[in-house]
Formats: sequence, C-alpha cells, structure tokens
Amino acid sequence: MPSWTHLVRFIAVEDSQEHLGQLVDPTRDVGRDSADGKEITVYLIDGTIFDGRVTKEILHVKQLLSPVSREDCNYIRCLGLNYKDHAKEANLALPKAPILFSKPRTALTGPFPATINIPKCAQDETSDYEAELCLVIGKTGRNIPEDEALDYILGYTASNDVSARALQLATTQWSFSKGLDGSCPIGPVLVAPSVINDPQTLSIKAIHNNDTVQDGHTRDMIFDIKKQISYLSQGTTLEAGTLFLTGTPAGIGYFKQPRRVLRDGDEISVQIEKIGTLVNKVRYENL
Amino acid sequence: MPSWTHLVRFIAVEDSQEHLGQLVDPTRDVGRDSADGKEITVYLIDGTIFDGRVTKEILHVKQLLSPVSREDCNYIRCLGLNYKDHAKEANLALPKAPILFSKPRTALTGPFPATINIPKCAQDETSDYEAELCLVIGKTGRNIPEDEALDYILGYTASNDVSARALQLATTQWSFSKGLDGSCPIGPVLVAPSVINDPQTLSIKAIHNNDTVQDGHTRDMIFDIKKQISYLSQGTTLEAGTLFLTGTPAGIGYFKQPRRVLRDGDEISVQIEKIGTLVNKVRYENL
Repeated sequence: MPSWTHLVRFIAVEDSQEHLGQLVDPTRDVGRDSADGKEITVYLIDGTIFDGRVTKEILHVKQLLSPVSREDCNYIRCLGLNYKDHAKEANLALPKAPILFSKPRTALTGPFPATINIPKCAQDETSDYEAELCLVIGKTGRNIPEDEALDYILGYTASNDVSARALQLATTQWSFSKGLDGSCPIGPVLVAPSVINDPQTLSIKAIHNNDTVQDGHTRDMIFDIKKQISYLSQGTTLEAGTLFLTGTPAGIGYFKQPRRVLRDGDEISVQIEKIGTLVNKVRYENL
Repeated sequence: MPSWTHLVRFIAVEDSQEHLGQLVDPTRDVGRDSADGKEITVYLIDGTIFDGRVTKEILHVKQLLSPVSREDCNYIRCLGLNYKDHAKEANLALPKAPILFSKPRTALTGPFPATINIPKCAQDETSDYEAELCLVIGKTGRNIPEDEALDYILGYTASNDVSARALQLATTQWSFSKGLDGSCPIGPVLVAPSVINDPQTLSIKAIHNNDTVQDGHTRDMIFDIKKQISYLSQGTTLEAGTLFLTGTPAGIGYFKQPRRVLRDGDEISVQIEKIGTLVNKVRYENL
C-alpha cells in the first residue's frame, strides 16, 4: 500500500529531474495554481505510484506532469455515453452494457504547461472537450466482483477525452478520432481512494475560456464505477496501470447552440470535486 | 535493419529458454507442422525483433510463441469491415474511412499449443473467428505518406480476431467483445517485407475443424495497407511494436447458415499465402 493521499509527478526546481511528490497542502487546487504561476511545494515520494512512501524531504515544483507516465500506463479504457444527461443531449437511448473504446498511450499528456495539440486532420471546427473522472487500476485483476471493485483502484484524477467530432462521425468506431496524440490529458493530482471514499458523489465541470460548459455529477453515471470495473474485467485481465475514463456529462461543445469548438489559444479545464482542476491550453499544429 | 526473413519466437529444446530464431527451411509451414508434432530447427537470432541478426547456431523448437511478445507490443490496432465481400455479407455499406478499434495486449497469445480460451461471458454460442493478415510496425512514425507507408513495416504474420458476437452486438463499440484475454492469437512466423513484396497479393483462409470457412484475398481490402498506415498515422504516433490487424474477408461463423461457433475442443486455423498457418485449439474456461 502506498502512503500518499495526493500524488503529483513533476519536474523539481532543485534538480530539474522528474519525481513523485505528495502535496504539502492537499486542500490547494494546484492544477489551477500552477497555471496561474503560483509556487507549489511537495514532500518527495520514494518508490513508484503503486508503492510510493512519502518522505520528509521538501521539493518545489518546476512543472507538473501527468501523474501516470506513458511507461506506467499500458492501456487507456474509455466509456462512451455513460451519463444520463449526456445520452439525452445526444438523443440516444441509455446503453444496456458499458460502451468501451480505447486510446493509445501516445494520447496521454499532462496538465498545464502541456498543451492539447490539435493536428491538421482535426482542425475542422469540430475539435471538442469531454470532462471525465479518470481512475487508475492499482493491482491486476480479472473477473472482479462488484463488491470488490473499488479495492482495485489506486487513485482518481481529472481527465479530458478530447474528441475530433467530424472524424468520429465518419465511422462507427471511435478509437481513431479520440486517440490522436495528446487527446488524453490527465492530472495533475492523483487522489487516493481513502480521500474520495465514494466516487459517485463528485461534481464535475468543464470550463472553456472562463465559461462553465459542463456542470455534471458522478451520481448520474449510467454504469457506476463498481459496475464498470466488474463488467469490463469479465474474461479480461485489467493490468495495474490501466486508466479508466469513466464517461462525460452533458454539455459537450458539439451539441451547444451555437456550437463550441476548441480553437488555437483557448483554455479548457476539467474541475472535479475533491480532486481539483486540470488546465490545458489548446495549440493548433502547423506541421 | 534486421537480417532475418522468417522469424519465430520460441522455447528451445536445448535450454528451455525463450529465443528468437530464423527458420532453417523457410518453405516449411511450421505452424501446421508444429501442431502435427514435427521437429523444427532454426538459426538463433541475436538481438530483438527490430534489429536481430541471424547467427549460425542451430536450435530446436520445443514450443512456438507469438513472434511479438506482450512486452514488445504496446498497442493492437484492428480494422473493422475492411473487405468488400465481408461488408456485403454483413449487409453494410462500404465504409468511407478506416474503422479502427483496439485490443489490449492482454489479448495477445501465440500459436499451438497456446489455446484460445473462451471465458464464461462468451460461452453463449456466438464465439467466432476472423482470419486476418497482421502487420508489425518496425519504426515509430507519424503523418506517414502513402508512398512511404510500407517502409514502416517490420513484418507480416497471421492472426485471428476472435470475437464474442453477442457481446459485440450489445453495444456500439467493439473493444470489449473483441478484447477478451487470448482473443488475439498471432504467428507463428513473422515474414519480412522483402519476402512479401506486395501485401495485397495474398490468399487468406480460415479453416475450422478441417472445413475451409473463409477463403479470401488481400486484394479485396477496402483500405489497402498503405492507406491504413497513412490514414491512421495522421496526428497519431504509431509506435514501433504496434500490431495492425487488417480486417477479415467474408465467411465469419455468425453469418453462416447454419451458424458456425467456436466450441470447446475445436481447431481453428488461419492460413495466409507466403506466411503459413496459425493453428489454435479452443478451450472453454471453467472459472
């Protein structure tokens, strides 16, 4: 069992190296604070995200990174259409089984100053955000009963399921349109289950250029987190380090009147109760 | 550049350890021969699948494995509905863009004696085969032009996109129903592009308990391999070690009259011209 409750991965002021740290003040929204240029201090963590022990050594954050690295993340599982209000705005019936697609680890990126880079193929006025609660599997399991599912969770963080809607609507399967490089920012804080207790009690928002564009709550999930883990582990080994993006509430840009689009220079944030804010700037690629 | 042309990963008789080898006789169908209990000899390969050099040391094969290991395979990209005759039997229009879904690396398994294990959740008389040409990306790339796409291929092998049809039809996205443990057998031989030359000139068959149930040809792909690699690398880094399962021709069990099902004890093979035969037995799990 790791001893951290609020873990960040970061580059330190002291040595310009990558480390894991525990927030000295866990009540601070360091994702927002970091984007605003405020100083952040942490206790160094010895070990990995899976077994890390908090030490007494203080370090200062130069740059926050995704709490899970690409090396630690072997697979990114994403739920589609998993909030009642989002199914309603999409004018679709509630699904009878969890809708699973995946992103490659090359989609993984961090919080500010990491940017969401929109490649040429998605610069078509349909680039969109999806605020999602992300969980990280802490121990490998298979055929997991619902009443044991939460024991497999290492922690929770914020994530954005960045989506290229025109590409998404061009085909029946979503792995390409939602799997572009950098389409999966997560972080910055990985919060232990001991802090969250019940993951179905969290407000979740997306904020686009200072406007709250999604304002949902995890109690509105169609398949709650216990059910997702149990169902998706049937006949399927969930490896430690797997991410689950658990679906998005109503308010995506594509369904807004007028439509909202992620444009070059925009700021898009995902804010989750007890977890904090994932802030990213959007950058349109020229290459 | 590796120097092998017909690579296998295997456990050796001599030391019971895992090695890479080059077939001493590349004209043999060692997948079929191995399942029939015949002896196979190889030249030891020094290095990895990406840079391996063939030596003069002879070894004997105790057990063939998947040519790409789970450690080398960071992502499995699969094409849906990519043969004209299969789209026709499914009564679906030809797709306008490649249909991409993915399998987790936990789905990866090897040729005989590795079995296709059908878990409880798929023992519903809809467990099915899909013969597919599989290619392995040899160098990392992004925004790859069609006329350079084949340069990114390390080799070709046979694969079976094992599918749980009832689970597949229960939702719009296929990553769960096609991503069960062991649902991606590949191998045994990884054949270099210098041998294949044009991957759109290969006959491809599935053989179920001695009956030829799929009898297709890679010229019937809707999106040929150059187009797949080019399209799916737009804004997307394809890492070395990525597998592409390039779609299946007509003849899947679910559409047959009467329906064909993978049942406990069955043998299912995928046979591809110039590559050989991937043989697996089916085993129904009791747990």
